[in-house]
Amino acid sequence: MGAALNETHDPNLQSWIASANEPDSGFPIQNLPFAVFRPDETASFRPGVAIGDRILDLQALADLRPFYGLAARALEACKGQRLNALMALSSAHWSALRLELSRALRLGSAMADRLQPLLSAQSDAQFDLPARIGDYTDFYISIHHASAVGSLFRPDNPLLPNYKWVPIGYHGRASSISVSGSDFARPCGQTKPAGNPGPPQVGPSQRLDYELELGAFIGTGNPMGRRIRIEDAESHVFGLCLLNDWSARDLQAWEYQPLGPFLAKNFATTISPWLVSMEALTPFRCPFARASGDPSPLPYLSSTDNDSSGSIDIELEVWITTQRSREADEQPFLLGRSNFRHAYWTLAQLVTHHTVNGCNLQPGDLLGTGTLSGPGAGQEGSLLELTLGGKQAVQLPWGEQRLFLEDFDEITLKAVCRKAGYPSISFGGCSARVLPPLPLTSTER
Amino acid sequence: MGAALNETHDPNLQSWIASANEPDSGFPIQNLPFAVFRPDETASFRPGVAIGDRILDLQALADLRPFYGLAARALEACKGQRLNALMALSSAHWSALRLELSRALRLGSAMADRLQPLLSAQSDAQFDLPARIGDYTDFYISIHHASAVGSLFRPDNPLLPNYKWVPIGYHGRASSISVSGSDFARPCGQTKPAGNPGPPQVGPSQRLDYELELGAFIGTGNPMGRRIRIEDAESHVFGLCLLNDWSARDLQAWEYQPLGPFLAKNFATTISPWLVSMEALTPFRCPFARASGDPSPLPYLSSTDNDSSGSIDIELEVWITTQRSREADEQPFLLGRSNFRHAYWTLAQLVTHHTVNGCNLQPGDLLGTGTLSGPGAGQEGSLLELTLGGKQAVQLPWGEQRLFLEDFDEITLKAVCRKAGYPSISFGGCSARVLPPLPLTSTER
Repeated sequence: MGAALNETHDPNLQSWIASANEPDSGFPIQNLPFAVFRPDETASFRPGVAIGDRILDLQALADLRPFYGLAARALEACKGQRLNALMALSSAHWSALRLELSRALRLGSAMADRLQPLLSAQSDAQFDLPARIGDYTDFYISIHHASAVGSLFRPDNPLLPNYKWVPIGYHGRASSISVSGSDFARPCGQTKPAGNPGPPQVGPSQRLDYELELGAFIGTGNPMGRRIRIEDAESHVFGLCLLNDWSARDLQAWEYQPLGPFLAKNFATTISPWLVSMEALTPFRCPFARASGDPSPLPYLSSTDNDSSGSIDIELEVWITTQRSREADEQPFLLGRSNFRHAYWTLAQLVTHHTVNGCNLQPGDLLGTGTLSGPGAGQEGSLLELTLGGKQAVQLPWGEQRLFLEDFDEITLKAVCRKAGYPSISFGGCSARVLPPLPLTSTER
Repeated sequence: MGAALNETHDPNLQSWIASANEPDSGFPIQNLPFAVFRPDETASFRPGVAIGDRILDLQALADLRPFYGLAARALEACKGQRLNALMALSSAHWSALRLELSRALRLGSAMADRLQPLLSAQSDAQFDLPARIGDYTDFYISIHHASAVGSLFRPDNPLLPNYKWVPIGYHGRASSISVSGSDFARPCGQTKPAGNPGPPQVGPSQRLDYELELGAFIGTGNPMGRRIRIEDAESHVFGLCLLNDWSARDLQAWEYQPLGPFLAKNFATTISPWLVSMEALTPFRCPFARASGDPSPLPYLSSTDNDSSGSIDIELEVWITTQRSREADEQPFLLGRSNFRHAYWTLAQLVTHHTVNGCNLQPGDLLGTGTLSGPGAGQEGSLLELTLGGKQAVQLPWGEQRLFLEDFDEITLKAVCRKAGYPSISFGGCSARVLPPLPLTSTER
């Protein structure tokens, strides 16, 4: 599981693109994440790779036919508008392309002159979804989130008996997934406050929330009826992004029994444009350890690699900006800081569990981790947890407070991997803003 | 809501294709359902329309450019391999195409000689999915099914308080939807029998079931953030098919709390190839009536048309063939017979509810109705209901019995609309066979 360290992980590697070598670049030559972008509004979308504050145009690079073998085939797959064709190849192809890109962008590369014209500024670029997403599955892998939310929805029964055995997941909506920067209208729907004996009401959600998640894009899939074994599972993951699973808690509470969340979550999901490869994350692998007393995973979800390096040390943050703070030019406020390594299930376990029944995954499918809350205070991944179900307001330093999100609030997720003696690996940001609802007409209310 | 009756509904219309005029054809000129087919294994898939025991090749017809205006534009959209482009147009386009096809296939049509070479035999044809399905949503619209299943899963709380207010739905898996005739392996997964104190087991499902449903293909969609009002909702439905939502009840019972069914259902879903248009169903519309004492739908789900003609009289059947009955050349056995008109929610209500929060539907999205059990004995749409949760076996006339499905069992769903003085409208059949599971290896168990 996980790629081995290779020359692309050398911490001393530097790029001929100076901004990549700055200490807090986030996009050093050790990162090389993929996105779908266009240099400006008049261009078409195409795959690119980040290096420092620039993006290398992979569609244009493919026209130069600079590589051989697997890397050439992988680059050829970047000629389309999305990354699905590249994803469909194999982890050996992705690795070969990463190696050649690392060499080409390295200080002293003979290709620098030819590549220079293929670079554009990240700050000018526009982004689109990195892949056509066939199916989107959301999991629930933070036991801290599951326990906290469970205690609000089911005070007498917070953590259900299946949680420590089954990587709980459900299917989400693919059509309403957008890339960072796509604002969306506050959803309307049915709500019925607890203890209210009357009929439910219809109107804008009053308890709109964010959820701090990571997303994993499936690269190579599996045919229907064939399982992906845990030893092979990670080689099917193309890369990771940030994911905000916006949630209308009042809609959710009323609709979710017995078939799970539906309208409470399918109005909008936001992901970051950059996909950080599993290989770029190799230096940040860490042991997967369950608390003493927790059962061992069942054999199909168990492997030595999963125990020794199944987790990844990824720092996660969620920040808020409001209309008032924007107008007053205040800095965003940090609502929570967590880490992916607190998760109760690994990415490999999610892939294997998803296919144990023969379900077919396809290139470009997206798996969400579920809200990645940590064990402690300040590590909450949603307002539901932070405000104890809307009971205790968060104070914002510019004099406002929040129980849930208000119109024009903007939430930004961030992720970064840090390690002494190694350049930091950034996921970039994942932002979107809540717009006012489309009002219901008098005949609809 | 619902199209008005027009000349395509004249019960006396006859086709120059003789088989369409036979009393039990099921595909008279009043039906004209769409599918994606190929005449034989060497050809590519293309859209077609059924007439009697023949299929008219719409891709080839488009090359003749026989129509004008909306019908011409609709036919042009049939040049691809799927129906998505046709679906994306509008109900006015679908209606115009239907009218011209009805005229072209009518007895006395001047086009008969030109169309004759474009016909092939349904019995020789192979079918594919009619559309690229972006998202698949399954609903739960039979109150009889919800009550029966609820009493098995939650004896003290069978019908939840939201059922009569919210058209309950959840997102299903699009990648594992196949067209009739695609057999599939019995799924494996975690199960934990009630009362068993040990860890869960992993292995082939022992409680595999079918679910008798209809599917509705979305034609024109809606942009994110915009609702589809109930008055407009049916004009977004391109057509209906049969849908078998195969379900592993033992996996479902253990995994479904708190986020709903996942691996219990996402291993396979089977749909019939033919999409019967809403216009073809117009003569079979019937009032939508809730039982006295049931609440009125909330305003956004309410309209005069919905009350007067929201339901459709569609007879539904589920049949079983087993390995033994196949070898003994026995006729299939009827397991249940129900009707779509028993449903608690209408198609228009499903579309409107799905978008009330701004969720965007897209051409080719599929909505399942949920199991369409009727109120009486013999009207069960699943074995779970028929065997009272696996407690009372169904006797098959050739000497076998069933609690749940066994390997090589084949389930066939059928649907037909019947009315005195009007030709019967068939949906064709929806069949698939359960194959043995891919065994778990010793390290996976």
